[in-house]
Amino acid sequence: MREVGIVGVGHTNFGKFSGGTFIDMISMAAVEALDDAGVKLAEGQHGIDQVFVATMGAGILNKQSGIASALVDTLNLRPAMAETVENGPASGASAIKLGYMAIASGMCDAVLVVGGEMMRVVSGWEGTDFVATMLHPEAEYNYGITLPTLAGMFTRLCMEKYGITEKDLAIVSVKNHENALHNPVAHLHIVPNLYAITEDEDAGIVNPYVASPLRLYSVCPVSDGAAAVLLCAMDKADRFAKKPVKIAGIGQATDTHAVAEREVSTDLLAVRLAAQNAYEMAGLKPEDIDVAELHDAFQILEIVESEEVGFFKRGEGHIAARNGETKIGGKIPINTSGGLKAKGHPLGATGVSQVVEIVKQLRGEAAGRQVKGAKAGLAVNFGGFGNNVVATILTKEAE
Amino acid sequence: MREVGIVGVGHTNFGKFSGGTFIDMISMAAVEALDDAGVKLAEGQHGIDQVFVATMGAGILNKQSGIASALVDTLNLRPAMAETVENGPASGASAIKLGYMAIASGMCDAVLVVGGEMMRVVSGWEGTDFVATMLHPEAEYNYGITLPTLAGMFTRLCMEKYGITEKDLAIVSVKNHENALHNPVAHLHIVPNLYAITEDEDAGIVNPYVASPLRLYSVCPVSDGAAAVLLCAMDKADRFAKKPVKIAGIGQATDTHAVAEREVSTDLLAVRLAAQNAYEMAGLKPEDIDVAELHDAFQILEIVESEEVGFFKRGEGHIAARNGETKIGGKIPINTSGGLKAKGHPLGATGVSQVVEIVKQLRGEAAGRQVKGAKAGLAVNFGGFGNNVVATILTKEAE
Repeated sequence: MREVGIVGVGHTNFGKFSGGTFIDMISMAAVEALDDAGVKLAEGQHGIDQVFVATMGAGILNKQSGIASALVDTLNLRPAMAETVENGPASGASAIKLGYMAIASGMCDAVLVVGGEMMRVVSGWEGTDFVATMLHPEAEYNYGITLPTLAGMFTRLCMEKYGITEKDLAIVSVKNHENALHNPVAHLHIVPNLYAITEDEDAGIVNPYVASPLRLYSVCPVSDGAAAVLLCAMDKADRFAKKPVKIAGIGQATDTHAVAEREVSTDLLAVRLAAQNAYEMAGLKPEDIDVAELHDAFQILEIVESEEVGFFKRGEGHIAARNGETKIGGKIPINTSGGLKAKGHPLGATGVSQVVEIVKQLRGEAAGRQVKGAKAGLAVNFGGFGNNVVATILTKEAE
Repeated sequence: MREVGIVGVGHTNFGKFSGGTFIDMISMAAVEALDDAGVKLAEGQHGIDQVFVATMGAGILNKQSGIASALVDTLNLRPAMAETVENGPASGASAIKLGYMAIASGMCDAVLVVGGEMMRVVSGWEGTDFVATMLHPEAEYNYGITLPTLAGMFTRLCMEKYGITEKDLAIVSVKNHENALHNPVAHLHIVPNLYAITEDEDAGIVNPYVASPLRLYSVCPVSDGAAAVLLCAMDKADRFAKKPVKIAGIGQATDTHAVAEREVSTDLLAVRLAAQNAYEMAGLKPEDIDVAELHDAFQILEIVESEEVGFFKRGEGHIAARNGETKIGGKIPINTSGGLKAKGHPLGATGVSQVVEIVKQLRGEAAGRQVKGAKAGLAVNFGGFGNNVVATILTKEAE
């Protein structure tokens, strides 16, 4: 199979985007990625064969279709091919997978992948309702189940089974908020003192329960934002300004759509299978990974994913977090970007944003949050409540 | 590049679907395609690696995301990979292209592609408004432009430039309605006497103008429906019940998002480029094609596309249609299925449905509408108002 690498990355600030339309927002990330790769749009010799846009809500929230065609036109990339890809919150990693396939097939040499979401056009319940469109429409959604309530139940089950405390959950949040301080594009640049708060009788005031045992700071914020990567065939990478980071492995797996139908309620089987497939393709093992971005839309997901991808034994992820093993400088730094928790989670952008962070780490461009000597990174992008998961492994080529 | 073929096709009745949910509808087409290929779902050894679902409106109209994951679960295809693909009304052909890439890349051996749309949940203006989401949001949509009004203006320009009459347009409709009589899954099984009507003073009563010069019967109906194809690597086709039809060529091109920005207003440049690319990949010429499905959402599109793909000289497509050259038995039969005009146009399903028709023609399974001895077929799926077009060429392998 033809090898594929990443030669350009771009990323808007996550948070509230008020600088224009959806197309404007994704264009900003795309232009940054093209610029990073040294592609000169003005000269018309961009050589981009295909554009994939990842978004979950451009239709439901922004009432627009054909976003990918619009982006091609806005960037003057005509007649490049273009499609929009949707896989819930894992849309971004899915789009990168498709870019990989497009190049590996030989049909394309260079593919631009942009993920974006403009979620803050809606408020409160409307947003929760939108996110809940990824649940099973008959077995879950109709009964009033939303993502936070599902995550609350999942968290409670894991706490009881493995002895995880509310403080253990807070440790994940605080670590990711601390990492985000060093990521200029993160949505939240604050470190809430969750230890004090959760032990305080007045906790409900500043960090109230949103779906017990989940509190406000257990859950990722609602963010606008976009991220982009430029993929190219490794055998055609010379024309770009940056040395490629290799996409060494991609794995993906689906699980039952309804969470209640799973054999073991506290397992994330699709995460395990996706990671196994990615490791196998890359010829690597969990211990070869130097840095990871895991999908921490809720704190418990980072803990269980860190086990399912093989970093820690089942039931011991929270202990590793307690011991600082997932901090920068620890055994396996997780969510150096701040994660979904503090960097933000514009759904369609997230999978691309995770890969942008890994590329920056492998390039040594992660500044204050740099993992020294990182040579291999893993990103896990989680769709639905684990019903469609994509794992991507990137490696730094020998100098 | 690894060769890819189609070993199974499925198709629901187009029209009003009242048999269940969106997932139920696309599942019906998928099960038929798997059954056609001899895949036994019950035995769990389906060997399907990837599912692509093409839909434009599952989000906007049906408020659902993650449709592809839901389909995988419904069909018990877990842990197959899954994504939803959107490219406006060309979503179906785009999904087939991605299936092609997935197999050609070596990552997959068998890919299920299902296109579907449940459009009749909305009425009148709501539907028109939904379809208009594919237009340029600032340069077109904001000025009240809809697809029918744009097509009306485009039709008028072509009529004036090439001397096309309203009767020429009616010839396209009548031919496609006649073909649909022989297609059991078509939405409309009537042949309106458009010649009499358009020459009658009372024309406005039964065939009123909807966007002059377009009348009611100039425009495709609003349909629900789904279609499916099972793709496989040609080198792994032996395990399926049907002999594969080969995907010989795929071409795709984008054009300006806003129609007003095009150099020649009456050209469909993306159709021309997409077809050229497909011919080149297939090593075929227009005269090698025996049967074609062209995207006749409006009559004029069939005429102009028949020129842009090289069947007729520019400005002569309507003369060929007048002379019966595009009828079954003519030089190059177009829209033997009834086309979008009479078979119906459930947006996400259409590109897949076109390919299903070509497969049936090449297999000799098209019954009363069979083109004798057809060995090569072309499908053109048209997104936006020609801003993203996919051309697919299928060939029958030597016996």
